[in-house]
This record gives sequence, C-alpha cells and structure tokens, in this order.
Amino acid sequence: MDYSARLNKVRAWMAEEGIDLLMLEDIEGQRDQNIRYLTGHPTDALLLLPLEKPANGEAILVAWDINLAKICTREAPVLLASYNDFGKQPIKVLSAAAQKLNLSAGSKIEIPSVTPYPVFLDYVGELTNYDILCREKGYAAELRKQRAVKNNEEIAILQKAASITNELIDLLEKKVRKEKIKTEADAAMLIELECRKHGCEGTSFGTLAAGPDRSFGIHAFPGWTCAPFGTQGFSILDFGVKYRGYCTDVTLTFACDLNPKQERLAGLVEKAAKLAFSMARNGTAAKEISAAVDALFSRSRKQMPHSLGHGIGLQEHEYPVIRNRSDNEWVLEPGMVFTIEPGLYDQTLGGCRLENDILMTETAAQVLTTARIIHL
Amino acid sequence: MDYSARLNKVRAWMAEEGIDLLMLEDIEGQRDQNIRYLTGHPTDALLLLPLEKPANGEAILVAWDINLAKICTREAPVLLASYNDFGKQPIKVLSAAAQKLNLSAGSKIEIPSVTPYPVFLDYVGELTNYDILCREKGYAAELRKQRAVKNNEEIAILQKAASITNELIDLLEKKVRKEKIKTEADAAMLIELECRKHGCEGTSFGTLAAGPDRSFGIHAFPGWTCAPFGTQGFSILDFGVKYRGYCTDVTLTFACDLNPKQERLAGLVEKAAKLAFSMARNGTAAKEISAAVDALFSRSRKQMPHSLGHGIGLQEHEYPVIRNRSDNEWVLEPGMVFTIEPGLYDQTLGGCRLENDILMTETAAQVLTTARIIHL
Repeated sequence: MDYSARLNKVRAWMAEEGIDLLMLEDIEGQRDQNIRYLTGHPTDALLLLPLEKPANGEAILVAWDINLAKICTREAPVLLASYNDFGKQPIKVLSAAAQKLNLSAGSKIEIPSVTPYPVFLDYVGELTNYDILCREKGYAAELRKQRAVKNNEEIAILQKAASITNELIDLLEKKVRKEKIKTEADAAMLIELECRKHGCEGTSFGTLAAGPDRSFGIHAFPGWTCAPFGTQGFSILDFGVKYRGYCTDVTLTFACDLNPKQERLAGLVEKAAKLAFSMARNGTAAKEISAAVDALFSRSRKQMPHSLGHGIGLQEHEYPVIRNRSDNEWVLEPGMVFTIEPGLYDQTLGGCRLENDILMTETAAQVLTTARIIHL
Repeated sequence: MDYSARLNKVRAWMAEEGIDLLMLEDIEGQRDQNIRYLTGHPTDALLLLPLEKPANGEAILVAWDINLAKICTREAPVLLASYNDFGKQPIKVLSAAAQKLNLSAGSKIEIPSVTPYPVFLDYVGELTNYDILCREKGYAAELRKQRAVKNNEEIAILQKAASITNELIDLLEKKVRKEKIKTEADAAMLIELECRKHGCEGTSFGTLAAGPDRSFGIHAFPGWTCAPFGTQGFSILDFGVKYRGYCTDVTLTFACDLNPKQERLAGLVEKAAKLAFSMARNGTAAKEISAAVDALFSRSRKQMPHSLGHGIGLQEHEYPVIRNRSDNEWVLEPGMVFTIEPGLYDQTLGGCRLENDILMTETAAQVLTTARIIHL
C-alpha cells in the first residue's frame, strides 16, 4: 500500500483547513480503522500526523503492542512509540507530541470527532496553549470520502476477497444440499475455518446464521446456535470474509418447501435486488435507488426495516450509505464498493434477505459476489 | 432478573442528582451493555428512563428490531417503540420522548457520557427547552459501580459460565495432548462449537489462539490462523464464554520443550498469579495487588505490558480495574468478579499468560476457573 500517498493526501487537506496536528485514536470503545488505512497497523494505537513532517518519518504511531507495530508498519513512513510509556492516556500522548514537535502556541490540533464531550473538556483544560478542534465535518468526514472510493490495489484485494466468498457460497450450497450442513453451527463453523484456509484474517463480523425459527430477526441474536438450518421455511446466512484487512458482506437465503406467502416474499426480495442493481450507475444518488426499493415493497404493503446497503472496505460498514433519507447525499462513482441487501421479515413467515457486493467501474456496476436465494 | 429493582436503583440515583430523564444508547460504534443490564434487551436500542414512571411501564425501550425486543424484555417493565419510526436518529427519539412524557421546561436530561462533542452541541441546539447534561461522572459511572458488585443471581450465572469454561479447559488439554488439536484453528473452532453446545450465546470475544511463532504478541493479530499450536515453545489460548449474557475470560498457556529462559519466564508468571491471588482480600486496593506484581517482575528485569486484571460481567472488560495507576481507586469487595492475568512477552522466547476469574465472597477470594500453564 502506498501509505505515503495517503498521508500526503490528508496533509494536503490539513493545509487547506489550517490544521497543524491531527490525532487519531483506535482504542477499546472507540475503534477507528483510519489508522490502519494510513499506516497498516490494525489495532490499539494513536496516530499523530503533523502538517510539518518530522525529521525521520511522516507521522508518529503510538502503539500498545510495539512488536506488532514493527511488523505491520513496515511499508509506512511512521515513527513508533509505546502507548504504555504514556500510561495509555491519549491526553498525555498529545501533550508530549505537541512539545516534541515544537508546535507554537495557538497551533490548531484536531482530535477525533467522536471524542466524548467530557473528554473534550479535559483536552481543552490540559492543552491550554493550543486550539483544540473536535468537528463533525473534520478529518473523519474527509477520510470517509477518501475511503469511499477505492484505488486499484484496494479493488484487487476486494476482488480476491469476493472470490474467496464465492467459493464459500458454492461450498455452503453443496453442503446444505447434501445435508452435511444441518445446523446454524455447521454453516458458521465452515465459514470460520474455510476463510482462514484461504488466507483471510477471519470473518468480517460475527456470522449470522438463522434457521427458520429465527430468521424473522433482522440480525439474529445470538448470531448462531446449534438450531436446525435449511429445514422448511427461510434460513438466512449473513457473513463476510476479511482479506488483507478488506471485508466482504453477503447474505444467502436458503428456501425450503415454501408456502405461497413465503414464495411471494422471496420473489419480492429478488425483484428488489434486480431493480436496485439496474439503477446502480455512476452519478445516481444512492437515496434514489433506496427510495425505489422502498416504493416497490410498499406497493405490496411490505416494509424493509433496514437500509438497502452500505459501503464496504476496511470496515464491514462504511460509505457510501445506500439509504432513503433526505440527508443522504452520497452519489455513486467509479471505485465505490457497496452492498445491496433487500430483506423482508415476518414473525410468522420468517425472513428473507439477499445481499451482494457491487463495484462501480468507469462504465458499469459489477456484482462481485454470487449470493442468491437457494431453493432447496 | 429483577429489572424493576435495577431500574428503581437508577431512579433513586436520578432523584439524588436531580435528573428528570435519562437516555442510554446502544448503537453501532457506541455500544452500551447497560441497556441489557436494565431491560434484558441485548443490542441496538435506546432506553429512556424518566424519574416519574409513565402510566403503563417504567421506561421506554426504543428498539431497532422490535420482534427481538418483544422476546428479550418479557421480564422487564418497559414500553416498546420502534427505532425505525424515528429514522434511527437518537435526537428525534429524545425530542419525542420529552414531549410524550410532558417534561416541563428546564427539566434535566442526561445523555450518554460518551456522546461526541459535536453531537452534544446538536442535542443542545435541538432541545433548547431542557437542560442537557453529558457528564463523565454521570449515570455511566454510577452503573459501573452498581455492575461491579454482582448479586446472587448474577454470581450463579457466572459460576455456571465458569463451569462450562472449565470443562472446555480440560477438553482442550486432553485434545492438545492427544494431538487432536494441532493448529490455532483446531483450538479456536473447538471452543466456538462446544460453548454453544453447552447453551452459551457464543464466546465472550474473538478467541486469541497464538502458537509459538506468534505468542509474543499481547493480543495475537489475527486472533487465530491455521498455524501450528502446542509445538515447541509457548502457545497462548485466551478465550471466554458468554452464558445468559455473562462473560468469562481465561488464558491458558501450553508450554512444550521449554529452554531454561522460557522455564524461568513461565515460573515467574505462575509466581505472579499466586502472589496476586494471595493478596485478593475484601478491602484491598486493586492497585496494590497490581503494584506488587509489577515489583515482582521488575526484580527480574521484566515488565508486563498490560493491566493485571479487570472485572467481568455483561462485558468482557468491566470493573473493577486491577491496574497499577495512581488514579485507580477500586477496592475489592464481596460480589466483585474479576480476572487476574499476569503475562510476559518476548520476541525471541514467546509469550506466556495465565488468566483466571476470581469471585470475592464475604470471607475470601475464590478462583472460579481452572486455567493453568500446561506443560506438554
């Protein structure tokens, strides 16, 4: 990965905004994959990015596990420091960094937009020499935009992740058909193991495997149990794999001996997926696609209780948002990778969802994954 | 669970503090198990708890998945509403609730202490009629204290979770000795399946299984792979099970053909665990125990890069904190359940950690789990 290019792009944005130092935090309860995006380091660290490059590196990564950081940041031009040396206290880290970097009084320092209000007050109280910024439209919003459009290297990784996902989909179908998969656990365990055999870090999120008794839930709770899977009705399987940090996210529905009402539900979900895909063009507003699907469902007096889709990348949920809300300003453009996942849920009929991952190319939308409603 | 008693205890605290309405949020990126603690509902919801009980229930749970909420809150005296009806926007929920509850102008409404500063400004801007509080020492701190001391029902659940964990520990030892477990994946997959067979919701957190090549990391990344496990050197297995919402958290180390330096490392970790356990008495400051272990390691010129322990309950990390820091004011008392987990890590020798779960009873500390360093 060209981490220098990414850091420079953020630095150019900082120059425009008049920011002298940026601090990112990826800590328990406040996760931020932007640090991985900018340095390769996956977890438990702070990143200090000054507008003026320091002498021997472009930024300072303050990592909890310094051994891990040494391995993960080999391609990134960052200096390393130990989070433990600062008692794992972000304010102490920032204070020390501002001094070490010789920031002049009045310098603008931006901290994470998710900084809790009481903690923001602590920062302001502690670093009285500087102008501490915590903005909704700060660096997090800028990085959301940058990360929403993938470059060729990221697309190649996501394509590889999709191809692993597709192999898994075929294997899952085969094993359900042969009754080698009979329980939610059988399905979930197969995914856990197979994705790692293919070199993945793991799953993108806790697999949701819900047999007919539980598929009415939007997100099954618990994620999977030892209950039957693939028996009469709808069984939902929502999973993804994480390959070199990048996530896929798909949902299969296994449909077995459906009654006429269930058939109609499944047909409607398939129709919605086709409609959404047909509308996915560069320049189209995401909310329009979502509104069209909502209208389709509404004509059958159905309602989808979740968004139509979301971007995928280093996180399983990122941008663009494919949601029918007036404040959703995302417009599709080349390099975006996102899910389309219409679903309908009924406490009697069960639930049916069909989710695939879409890549916008210069010319068209391309479906990367092969999730489907599998009629047993 | 006696959710009414829990809600009333919070309400008594609200009366003392002069709070008219409390809003809790458990949403993506801002998880809060307090809602489960107070209502039984496990995920994706807001809870509105007014000082004056509404007509038909004691609080309002605004849930994303209303079907799930109906099932999970059967024992809790809460009214249900759909989060989707408010466009999944917490501010709209709060605004509507304040109106519905007829809160008078100037009423004090407390929102989560982790509310980001920019979002806090939105609340203040939107709900101009009320006094919006966002405090570090607000309800979250109060509930941390309440949850740190478990009642008999919670202790019984944790004991059951511990007994499942202990069965798993024995099974893991047996299978590693018989070479039925040869890889990190073998160990992790066994835990995933067996805990569910015993009726658990799943694991408490992503299992960390690190063979000798990776055990030097404090927290292995990725959590587990298909790499060898139980071969020459140290293999670390850090896992827990979640039973009826409550988490255990243990770490085994498998030690195989250790060299003298590795033997000393393992001996030191065992000694630290014994020392810490011998010091665990009601009335003892948690930081004293941690300081004693740090001193023990320091005499051998070793340093532990993480805390000595932490409370467990509905979350895998809660209170008390067993950490050697001057601002750590936790003192052990009956009903507290926490881990003691000394560990040492070396890029050449590998890592060794020993973690067990301790219950403080009226008379003594009791080790609930049977994790150990297993010499192969």
